[in-house]
Order: sequence, then C-alpha cells, then structure tokens
Amino acid sequence: MRICIAQTRIKAAAPEDNFAEIEKAIAQAHSEQADVIILPEMALPGYFVGDGWERPAFIQKCEDFNHRIAALSGDAVVIFGSVATDPRARNEDGRLRKFNAALIAQNGKLLNNPCIGMPFWPKTLMPNYREFDDSRHFFDTRKLAAERQQSIQSLLKLFTLTLRNGQTLRLALGICEDAWSDDYPLNPYELMSSHGEKPDLMVNISCSPFTLGKHARRKKLFAGLSNKFSCPVVYVNAVGSQNVGKTIFTFDGDSGVYTPSGFHGIAPAFAAATRTLDLQSVANTTIADERPLSESSARNEELLTALEAGLSFVKDEWKLEKVVIGVSGGIDSALSAVLHARVFGAQNVFCVNMPSRFNSQLTIGAAQKLAKNLGCSFASLSIEESVQLTLNQLDDARQQGLPLPSLLNPLVAENIQARDRGSRILSATASALGAVFPCNANKSETTVGYSTLYGDHAGYLAPIADLWKSDVYGLANFYNQEIFSREVIPAETMQVIPSAELSAEQDVAQGKGDPLCYPYHDALFRLWVEEWNRFDFDSTLAAYDDGTLKNRLSDEAVQHLNRLFPTREEFKSDLKRWWNAYTGMGAFKRVQAPPVLAITRRSFGFDHRECVGFPRQL
Amino acid sequence: MRICIAQTRIKAAAPEDNFAEIEKAIAQAHSEQADVIILPEMALPGYFVGDGWERPAFIQKCEDFNHRIAALSGDAVVIFGSVATDPRARNEDGRLRKFNAALIAQNGKLLNNPCIGMPFWPKTLMPNYREFDDSRHFFDTRKLAAERQQSIQSLLKLFTLTLRNGQTLRLALGICEDAWSDDYPLNPYELMSSHGEKPDLMVNISCSPFTLGKHARRKKLFAGLSNKFSCPVVYVNAVGSQNVGKTIFTFDGDSGVYTPSGFHGIAPAFAAATRTLDLQSVANTTIADERPLSESSARNEELLTALEAGLSFVKDEWKLEKVVIGVSGGIDSALSAVLHARVFGAQNVFCVNMPSRFNSQLTIGAAQKLAKNLGCSFASLSIEESVQLTLNQLDDARQQGLPLPSLLNPLVAENIQARDRGSRILSATASALGAVFPCNANKSETTVGYSTLYGDHAGYLAPIADLWKSDVYGLANFYNQEIFSREVIPAETMQVIPSAELSAEQDVAQGKGDPLCYPYHDALFRLWVEEWNRFDFDSTLAAYDDGTLKNRLSDEAVQHLNRLFPTREEFKSDLKRWWNAYTGMGAFKRVQAPPVLAITRRSFGFDHRECVGFPRQL
Repeated sequence: MRICIAQTRIKAAAPEDNFAEIEKAIAQAHSEQADVIILPEMALPGYFVGDGWERPAFIQKCEDFNHRIAALSGDAVVIFGSVATDPRARNEDGRLRKFNAALIAQNGKLLNNPCIGMPFWPKTLMPNYREFDDSRHFFDTRKLAAERQQSIQSLLKLFTLTLRNGQTLRLALGICEDAWSDDYPLNPYELMSSHGEKPDLMVNISCSPFTLGKHARRKKLFAGLSNKFSCPVVYVNAVGSQNVGKTIFTFDGDSGVYTPSGFHGIAPAFAAATRTLDLQSVANTTIADERPLSESSARNEELLTALEAGLSFVKDEWKLEKVVIGVSGGIDSALSAVLHARVFGAQNVFCVNMPSRFNSQLTIGAAQKLAKNLGCSFASLSIEESVQLTLNQLDDARQQGLPLPSLLNPLVAENIQARDRGSRILSATASALGAVFPCNANKSETTVGYSTLYGDHAGYLAPIADLWKSDVYGLANFYNQEIFSREVIPAETMQVIPSAELSAEQDVAQGKGDPLCYPYHDALFRLWVEEWNRFDFDSTLAAYDDGTLKNRLSDEAVQHLNRLFPTREEFKSDLKRWWNAYTGMGAFKRVQAPPVLAITRRSFGFDHRECVGFPRQL
Repeated sequence: MRICIAQTRIKAAAPEDNFAEIEKAIAQAHSEQADVIILPEMALPGYFVGDGWERPAFIQKCEDFNHRIAALSGDAVVIFGSVATDPRARNEDGRLRKFNAALIAQNGKLLNNPCIGMPFWPKTLMPNYREFDDSRHFFDTRKLAAERQQSIQSLLKLFTLTLRNGQTLRLALGICEDAWSDDYPLNPYELMSSHGEKPDLMVNISCSPFTLGKHARRKKLFAGLSNKFSCPVVYVNAVGSQNVGKTIFTFDGDSGVYTPSGFHGIAPAFAAATRTLDLQSVANTTIADERPLSESSARNEELLTALEAGLSFVKDEWKLEKVVIGVSGGIDSALSAVLHARVFGAQNVFCVNMPSRFNSQLTIGAAQKLAKNLGCSFASLSIEESVQLTLNQLDDARQQGLPLPSLLNPLVAENIQARDRGSRILSATASALGAVFPCNANKSETTVGYSTLYGDHAGYLAPIADLWKSDVYGLANFYNQEIFSREVIPAETMQVIPSAELSAEQDVAQGKGDPLCYPYHDALFRLWVEEWNRFDFDSTLAAYDDGTLKNRLSDEAVQHLNRLFPTREEFKSDLKRWWNAYTGMGAFKRVQAPPVLAITRRSFGFDHRECVGFPRQL
C-alpha cells in the first residue's frame, strides 16, 4: 500500500492559498501512485484563525473548498483536516455548529461517517490549555454523544476503506489531541478498537505547534500507540507559522510513520514536503540511530532551528524585507542581529547604535564590531541632544505650572533614554527605510518587566522573548562555536556584565549592571512561569523553608542563592521584589508587548493569561 | 423569611481582601437577623484571575478561606461562590480538578451536596465565548455525569434547606450561566425541578460583567424564570473591576429579587451593598415604573455610568492618583479629559497640548478652553524642535550609509509627530509627575488601526476604545447638556472636522480631516466587529449586491453610503481598503494596544481573538 504524506504549509485563514498547496500535493501523490493521501489537521482553513470562526462566509467558503478537495481524489483515498458543520444545529454560543474534523474523500466525493451520519470525523478530545481554544469554537464527539443520548463508543468506530485495488483496510482515524489522551477519561483510539476488531492502519492528522522538547515526547507517545495496537501509525503534521495575536507559533511538521520500533521520519522538519512511501517497506526499515549530541548541543540546535524557521515563516507571511536593529553591544541585541542577518540576509539588516553619555566605549565598539562581522550596515545616532531637549521641556512644563518635582526620580531620565531609542530613532529609521525593528527583550526581562514601555519593549516581534537569559548566552556561544567557527558575536559582548547602561549606576566599566543574577533568577522565574503547576510567592517561600526549593534548582542556581542571600529575610525580600514585579508592572507591560515567537511550552502572550494588578502587591 | 443580598466588591485573586468584605457583610446580615445570606459567584477568589488557577498554593488558600467563611455562618444559611476542588481527581489538562462552585454553609460547616457527594454545587453550563474561559480551568457537572456514567438529572436536584426556625425550603441553586441556557441542550433549573417537586426559592449567584444593554436582557430572562416556576429568584451579582489583561470589565451588581411581575431592585448599580429584606414583603411590592427616557438618553446615561464607574474602579485597583492628558482640541481627548476629571478630580488631571506647525489655532484654543472649563492645569509643549531633530538624524543616518530615500514617504513625518507626543512628552511628563496618561483612541480608529503605534496608540488604558466615534459625540453632547448644563466641552471641539492634524493635508481650517466618514463607517465596522455572526469582506459585498446591506444600516448611514459611493466599484474599493486595514495593520497594532475598558458585548482585547495578517490582504 502506497501512502502519501502531504506535509503542507498551512497559512491561517487563507483557504485559497492552502487549497493551491493541497492541489499540488494531491497531483504529485497521484503521479506517485499513492493509494492513500494524508494531509494535516485544518489543512484548508488553518487552525489559529482567531475570530474567523465567527464569520459564516468564511466557514461557507471553507466548506466549498472541502468539496473541491474531494473532487481531486480520483480513485485514491484522501484524508484531510478542515472545518465541517452541521447546519441544522447550533454550538452552545448560539452560533453555527462547527467541528474540527477529518474528512475522507474518494471518487470525487466526501465519504459518510456512519457513526454520526455526517460526512466527517470530528475531533473527540479538545485541548483547552496553552494556546488551544478548541472548545470555544468547535462541537465535539463527546457533546454529540450526550446530546444524542448515545454512548461515546457508538460514535467511535473503525472505518473500512476500500482501496482502488479492492483491498479493504480497517482505519483508526484521529486528530491530534485524540492521541494525547493521558489526562482525559477516555482514549479515542482505544474506543475505536473496542468493537472486537483491530485496526490495520492508524492515522493521526495534526496541526501541532513546535515546542522545545515536544518532538521527543511525540516519538515516545506514537511509538507507544503503534506498539499497543501492533499497527503502524501514520502521523501527518503541518508546517508554517500561525499566530494567536500575541504569540506566534511555528509548526515543525516532522511527519512520518511510527511502528512499535520507533519513528520512521519521512518529511523534513519545518519545510513543506510531499512524500509517497510503501508502508510495508518503511515498516521493515531499521531505524537509524540519531547522531549523538551532548544535551546542551541538542538543546541549542533545536533552539537555533526553531528560531530561524519561525523567523523565516514570519518574514514570509508578513512580507517583510528589511530590519533595523538597535545594537547596544549587549548579548540580546547581538543574538537578535545574528538571527535576523541569517534569515533576512545581512544586506537587509541595518544596525543602529544609539549612544548616550552612559554607554561605554567597550559596548559601543562591540556593537560596531558585530555589524562588521555580520556584514550589516551600521550607523551611530546619538540620543544626547533629544534627551536634553526632553528634560528642558519638563522644566518648561514646571514653569507653566505643572507640579513636577524639581529633583526628578532617576528612573524618569532612564526611561526617557530608552523611549528615545525605541520610539524616536528606531521607529523613524525603520519607517523611513520601509523596515521593521525587533524588540530584543529576553524572557527573564519580560517576566519582571525589566524594560521600558515604548522603549526597548517596542518592536514588530520579540524573537527571543521566549529564551531565558541563560539560553541567550548558550545560543550565542553555539553560533560562534558551531555555526560560524569564529567570534561573530564579539568576545566583549559575551563577557561584559549585562547592563541597560542608562545611568552611572549601571557603568559596566565599574562592573555595575542589571539587578538580576540570571543563573539564579532564571531558575526562580521558571518555577513561576513554566511549571505546569505553578509556584507563587507563598509556595516558593514555603519550599525555601522546608528545604525542597533546592531540589527544583540547578546546582549553579543553588550556589548563587546561597551566596546572594545569607539569611531568610534577604531571600524573602528579593523574592517579594520580583514577585511584585512579575505580577504587577511586568504584567502591565506584557499587555502592550509585541508578539512573542513561541519556543517553550509556555511563552508569554496568549497562553500566559494575565490579570493585571494580580495579586495585591505584597 | 429574611434574605440578605450581599453584593460585595470582588477583587481578582485577592482572597484576603475579599474575605474581609465577606466577613463584614455576614456580620451585618447577622445583625439584621437574616435567615439566608447570599454572596456572588467567585466571591472569594475573584473570577478573572488569569493563570492564578494554575497555582496550587492559591487554590489551597482559597479553600482554607472557604472554611473560614463557613465558620461565620452561625445558624443562618450562607450561600457563596468560590473555587472548590476534588483533590482525588484531575482536570483534562492534568492539573488539579477545580470547580466554579456554589457553597452552602450553616452552623459553621459546609453542607454536603448529596448528588455529587462533595460539599459544593458545581456550575453546570460553562460559557466559552466573549471573555469567558470557564472550560479552560473548571470541571463541570456535565463532565462529572459522563465520567460517572450517570444521567445529568441525577446530579441536579433541589436541595432542602432547614432554616433556624425549623422551616424547610426547597432550593434551586445555580451559578450565572446556568440561567442563560437558551443555546445549551439542557436547562439546569428545569432539570432540578424535574423530580416531581417545585422549588420554594431559586437563587442565581453571578459574577457577570456589565455590558451595554445587558441589564434589560437580564430583567427579561430572570422574570421569565420566576414566572416559569412560580417562584421568586434571588439574583446576587458582584461589583468591582476585574481584567483579562487586555480588557477591563466592570461588574455592575444590580442584585435583587425577580418575581413573575418583574425586577425588584435591592442593591444599587456599581456599588457594594449589603441589604436584608423580607422576601414575602418584597414579592408583594408593586414594581414602580422606570423614569421614562428617550432611547438616546438612556443609552448615554448607561454609557456615562459604566465609564465613570469602570474608571473609578481601575483608579482604585491600580492605586492611581494623577493623570496627564494630551488634549488636542478634538473630541476624543476632550471626552477622555472629562471622564478623568470627574473620576480623578480636576486638580489631579494635567492637560498638555503639544502643537506642531500643523495644528490650527482653533483646536489649540479649544484645548486650552477645555482645561479651563474643567479646572485642570494646562501646559503647552511644542514638538517642533524634536521632530526637526529626528528628521536631521535621519539625514545623518543616510550620510552614514543607511539607504534611506531622500524623499521620505509623508507618513514617516506624520508618525514621528505622533510618537513624539506619546512616547516623548506625555510619557516623560507623566513619569515625572508620578502620573499615568490615557490612550484616547475610539473604537472606530482602533478597528482600522488609524493611530500611531507608540504615539496616540500609547497609554495606561484606553477608556473610550469601546465607543464608536458616533457614541463619543453623543456622550460629549450629553455631558454638556445633561450633566454640566453648559459648554464644558467647547463648541469648537464639537464642530471641528475630526482630524489628526499631522500634515497640511489634514488642515481643519480648510475642512480637511480623517479619511473616515464616521456615520457610515461606524455602522460598517459594527458588522465586522460586533455582530454575533460576523460579516467579512465577501459577505458585506454580497449584502451590498443583493440589496440587504441597507437593512443592516441606519437611514443616516445609508444616505452617506449612497453619497460617498455612486458606483459599486467605489463602494468595493473603500470596503477593501478598510477590511485590509482592520485585519492587517489594525490587528498588528491592537496586539500592542493598552487595555480597553469594555462597554459593549464585544470590545477589543481578549474577546476579539486576533490573527495577525488574517486574511491575505485582498
């Protein structure tokens, strides 16, 4: 049996574009004599289409395209994901009843699902965590069962495909989450196989965003599924980029065949590909051992691939060409410049350094060196004059009667500098060039709002805001050592103390810098942000008190903790400072942050549900 | 029977504060000899607590407080909303199983719900539209029934309360959405009453945000419920302000008793109140006719009340004291200044006008007059010098080799001006004063991104971004006529053509202004943004073609449509321009917008799920 894995690139809410891709893939599959052609979940409409699901004309258009896809099937079987509806019924929000569905087409027609009496197979398990919002938009098999007062088993059965050679095949068909059933009270694949028959083929169509480390979990899960049912699992995932407004997700594809012995990779990661294979031969192939990598190299390689692929998709989707980057000589802007130069091409990346009296020659020189090493244009535009003008205008305001204190809080002048860079020089330069400029904030800063709104917080995208500061260093090193084999990111940048350089109190020449000790605070913030069952101020302090906190931190982080906080009071006072920053000003700033390119299983933006002012400041 | 309606102010994720309020209310109820004391849904934890629901220590704290509330009950019955858990079970995301629950306490203890064998009554219907996200966090009665393979009826029954005088009472208890069941396949109150008994008392505890026009729908719904079961319904709603990050909701309370004859208002709107009443006497009271108001006056009064209450809650929650307002002489900043002066006090509002060569004497004079009329300080700070400096620095960048065109796109200079105002002068002035400054964008501009990022798009809050431009005018007039009885907002401001005044092309003295014809475009944008089944480009054009579009617009909007677009091509070209703006740059800018104060049933922010770049530009 010849199976075609059509790992298409899906664009959100672009059925015309997606149909064109699907049409090409199906044509190629026919030319390669595929018996069964399998496309990803939501291959036609896209998955993260926001409120597009509330536009009846959009849904109707998708349904029209579903029939056009069916018309391409010929005597092959085409399995694809799309939106399907039951026009006789409503969702619980009173809108048209929609399903996240798998459809099967053959001989030009959509096949009927006898279990539900409609021509599609609905997704049974609806994820409602992370960026997933399926229950908001889609009805599901469980709700159908309840409504019809039928058992869920009666709606989940194997389906008999008849291939063009007359061979019949018992198919277990599921959509993405249907296979990730550990925390649900039911397992759809198991229920399908509970009617006294075994499946001949299991298929899972997905539109599953990349997450650091997910590929390894996916391999284990689907190989386990294949093993449990002694049956190959064909897994087809999408590629591309889709966003939920504040967070941008990259889809890694990585489609292939799972057998009890493991994963037979068929399609590449992060690239569209249509591959036809003989299922039996693939199943008989021995799985090659993966190239052994150190844990840290593997992590950096995964980060690098995902960031570059994600940025490349965004560039393409948003039709971007040029980028202006504010390079400070520090590590974050350096990594951002490297990523943009690799994805946009050095000739399209314009580095701008914006010195004030507080910037050291060390960092100014490092910024210039970085641009040269990357082959990017470079300009130096000072903020001194404008900052002075603003301070003079504050004097003027005072003279006109506004009750400004004569001695300003030092933060006032610091933030004026940061905004002058972001909202005056970078914005104007990018605008004049027809370019965009990124926000170079990392995840550590974003957690506690250590940035200036409309200043370094501004940008078209925050490409590294899902990387902890430690990851930023790790990846910068990896680029120098493994990719460039030279110091493209200057040694000064790697070595200088991290600092915003906005006042004499942050003078790097005197070793003064950020108030965060990243190796410790990164580890602490992870507990608040990334743990599935998240820590808060109370539970962190309790874990400190009962001695279990150190089990949650790396040895390095524990060493820093012991060094920084000789007493419980010092520990608690620092904890309180950053917890207030995280839930207070940090949350307030994140609401206005640029979109984040998601990497980890919890990035800021849509998945990190904010409640500004929560909780009461301690 | 004496019932106490404890319409408490609820703060999100502040169980300590909420407990203190609850304690006070219960003490007052006891002193007023209440037999039954009823508090709102989620009275203890707050409702919109973001990711607080993922913090086990927070949940544990709430459960501890639940017992402390129970301990206050004495021989009265206390009904309150909180989070409850089943520690033996998991939610479908693998986290602790949580319920949005009603709890009943008496004699110091939580009473057991015999239907589920746990000491609480779970919410049955889970809203997953608008800002509601219940399924993300909470398990519900329907899932319990499926898991236990029991009928839903068996889990929903009347509960017998025994009052301190020995009287027994059959109680039908539901939480908010349980009464709004029209689009669901089941009606919880009906199921409770389907076991051959009628309720003596129906209770609905809610944490239901204010929405323009909702109060009228609520009245109809609950009076209908009371009528259907010939039984009084006690409705207890929260007051206060809670946010979901990008959108700020105000809770209007408006608790009272519904009988078949209508609504007996007990607690005021938008203010905490504890009121004990004799249920029988209230039921016997004749309902007074409401003061008759014109439809437009009623709408403006509702807008005014909700905006001022919402802003007042925000001021209090975020501990704000002072506000800087960029007053342009236009209508939006004028309305914003009025709102802030009324809520913060004129002495705490500082008006700043920031002229450039493009601002007319007319608007500059109007801005000054407004500040004087309100009694606010006023300063004029020019942006000319800084804008020129920025343009000079762009020349410098060009000379340093960045490929800037020698003739800049006029938008470049326009946006430089707007950012200079928002991110330089207003930000610095507010920062120096320890104040905040609002974003004065209205909903029409926000829809199509007719604003400058980090410029007039910036601010701590967008208080009028849920008001269409037509509403802004209507409310401004209402203030002058009905509240102030004089022209606090100057006539020039009411009469001048709306304009950004960023170029000679927007010269109000020559009658040149915004590219939008608000009476028409407001009506068009409503179809895209606010319709439950939303229009898109295709369906709007189709409605134009088949003649049904005019049925969706006011007569005034149709007149403008006919005047503006003599041909289909002209109509279509304008439609395309704004549709692209709405789904393209508008969406991109909204991602970085300040929080919106929600007024309508669809405000921008969390409920308006964005998909940036959706769909392909036409």
